[in-house]
Amino acid sequence: MTSPLSLAVIGGGQLARMMQQAAIGLGVHIRLLAEAPDVSAAQVIPDHFVGDYTDIDDLRRAAEGSSVVTFDHEHVPPEHLRTLAAEGHMPRPGPGALIHAQDKITLRTRLDELAVPSPRWAVVASVDEVVAFGLPCVLKTPRGGYDGKGVWVVRSESDAAEALAGDAVLAEELVDFRRELSAQVARRPAGETVTYPVVESRQENGVCKEVIAPAPDLADELSQQAQQIAIEVAEALDVTGMLAVEMFETDDGRLLVNEFAMRPHNTGHWSIDGAATSQFENHLRGVLDLPLGPSTPSAAWSVMYNVLGGAIDDLEGQVGVVLAAVPEAHIHLYGKSVKAGRKVGHLTVTGDDLETVLARARQAGALLQDGSPIG
Amino acid sequence: MTSPLSLAVIGGGQLARMMQQAAIGLGVHIRLLAEAPDVSAAQVIPDHFVGDYTDIDDLRRAAEGSSVVTFDHEHVPPEHLRTLAAEGHMPRPGPGALIHAQDKITLRTRLDELAVPSPRWAVVASVDEVVAFGLPCVLKTPRGGYDGKGVWVVRSESDAAEALAGDAVLAEELVDFRRELSAQVARRPAGETVTYPVVESRQENGVCKEVIAPAPDLADELSQQAQQIAIEVAEALDVTGMLAVEMFETDDGRLLVNEFAMRPHNTGHWSIDGAATSQFENHLRGVLDLPLGPSTPSAAWSVMYNVLGGAIDDLEGQVGVVLAAVPEAHIHLYGKSVKAGRKVGHLTVTGDDLETVLARARQAGALLQDGSPIG
Repeated sequence: MTSPLSLAVIGGGQLARMMQQAAIGLGVHIRLLAEAPDVSAAQVIPDHFVGDYTDIDDLRRAAEGSSVVTFDHEHVPPEHLRTLAAEGHMPRPGPGALIHAQDKITLRTRLDELAVPSPRWAVVASVDEVVAFGLPCVLKTPRGGYDGKGVWVVRSESDAAEALAGDAVLAEELVDFRRELSAQVARRPAGETVTYPVVESRQENGVCKEVIAPAPDLADELSQQAQQIAIEVAEALDVTGMLAVEMFETDDGRLLVNEFAMRPHNTGHWSIDGAATSQFENHLRGVLDLPLGPSTPSAAWSVMYNVLGGAIDDLEGQVGVVLAAVPEAHIHLYGKSVKAGRKVGHLTVTGDDLETVLARARQAGALLQDGSPIG
Repeated sequence: MTSPLSLAVIGGGQLARMMQQAAIGLGVHIRLLAEAPDVSAAQVIPDHFVGDYTDIDDLRRAAEGSSVVTFDHEHVPPEHLRTLAAEGHMPRPGPGALIHAQDKITLRTRLDELAVPSPRWAVVASVDEVVAFGLPCVLKTPRGGYDGKGVWVVRSESDAAEALAGDAVLAEELVDFRRELSAQVARRPAGETVTYPVVESRQENGVCKEVIAPAPDLADELSQQAQQIAIEVAEALDVTGMLAVEMFETDDGRLLVNEFAMRPHNTGHWSIDGAATSQFENHLRGVLDLPLGPSTPSAAWSVMYNVLGGAIDDLEGQVGVVLAAVPEAHIHLYGKSVKAGRKVGHLTVTGDDLETVLARARQAGALLQDGSPIG
């Protein structure tokens, strides 16, 4: 079972699950550290064991036999990443890069050093400091937030008090934005990079609901600037594998960097069915130091629709209904039990006409999520 | 782990391995009967066990918990398929269909009944009968042959004696053909079909070496006739899942049916990277009675190159070399040990210009197989 292309993956969510689809083709053998016996990726990766990603011995067990270790999420403690590196394994991305996806204050500080356009920010410790920073604003916990968790839009002193009680210490300017964009880049240790088309992501209640690739009507200049920011950040932070940079496009036509992910990202799922090389394959190629693949879109438009836990409990049982209505939908189920709002799958539709592609993706998505033909 | 989309797969070769890539997306849970603990598909399907596909109890164990049973190969004894069906499982394709992929005499008889154009044939038992049939001719064993095994080109009485000693009993006209074509169709139990573009397959020493999709310069009339034959056969034999019909295009512009496969087939591997729905996904959708997906090509040309066991022993270790030269190659390794001539992987290149695509596929394939830049 040992392949010269062996890879330890920490975390058994849907990202690791989709890495396995790419790994099967390339002949990459994955050893998975899973949070529980039946998590998403453990269902499809034979060489898995149940362990705790905060326990260095479990991490060592995952890394045994692989030179490279990569991640389904960014929650592995930095000190453990440094220990693995000291013991001859190669966490990719490395601890020096990953800290920027783990800690928002470290990220903001570094982005300022790099002169990357970002919302104005400050560390705050009291309601007075929040007021001094300026209301309204956004307060965030520096670590562990995702999908709108750990983020408060603060319009009053009592909002501020509530956020501070929730461990928020990072204040950010509340940006008037037109929409959210995401720029992805794959990078090898030696420096080769491949950028993906900049996409638009649409959120509902702080959770990504749809991604359109490429972002419609995006000025060439902004598209190039977004890709340039992604490359610059990947190089400055020595990122390996996939980097996603989420940005705001402001009402007055500027880009401001919002968040980072140093792994395959929800805003790149379209690439499985809509690009010459998926973000999952290029993540594997990047972290394993293999030449990267082209990101060329295979259709004019791709729309990815996130299936969040809704009215349909039996997603697998609903696949036939969805495909009867939209046979061209590319369905991706994650093998997760359905809970309200949880990301349990996604689907992608590609084609030449954006309105058609968007309508078909929404039709299929609504059928899969809620059993109704309209989203 | 139990999904309403549960499927038993008999046989752990590369076809089952590639079914798993499609199954992961659709949320299909595969239980695999594997020939050995480390066969190709067992490396990537957690729910596998080692068993014997000629043992009804092992087949029952595979089928337990799944309504549908499908196959990596056509070697399961017909009486066992009938037993499984009698016990409430659904072998797909069913025994009545599969016998035509198992027994060439049954196939030839049925094709004649259907008036499907085929080479002239006869059952022969002696050198005299072979001579009476006419030399030169082809002699075949009716069962178990593949990749040129069980096939003799007979030009003399001594050739005939040798073939008869090798259990050949089926004589076929030696066809003067221009090239070999393959027409694939996916079919659901209720009757829906989707045809794939007709492809050209090029053999070396009786083994498929390259596939070009679509077949270059194929007259529309012949293309439609080939697809029509595939649909007609799939319907007449009640095939479910994928059917491949291999045909000769004769020097005088006719089609003659050569062989059948009722499963994903080597001549359809291009569809993973070159069609809207791969043959593996449509096989799963067909046998599970889900609506089929479109077969629309995603590029003007796809070329699939079979990697046969050659000078390179460590295929995984060679991936970086191949991707450095041809980053756009879609590599598919099967996790098999390299033996001379054994199918150990394939790769596909797609694009707009056939000469370029063919040259790039050959360059990548030769590098992967033999480490040399020329095939």
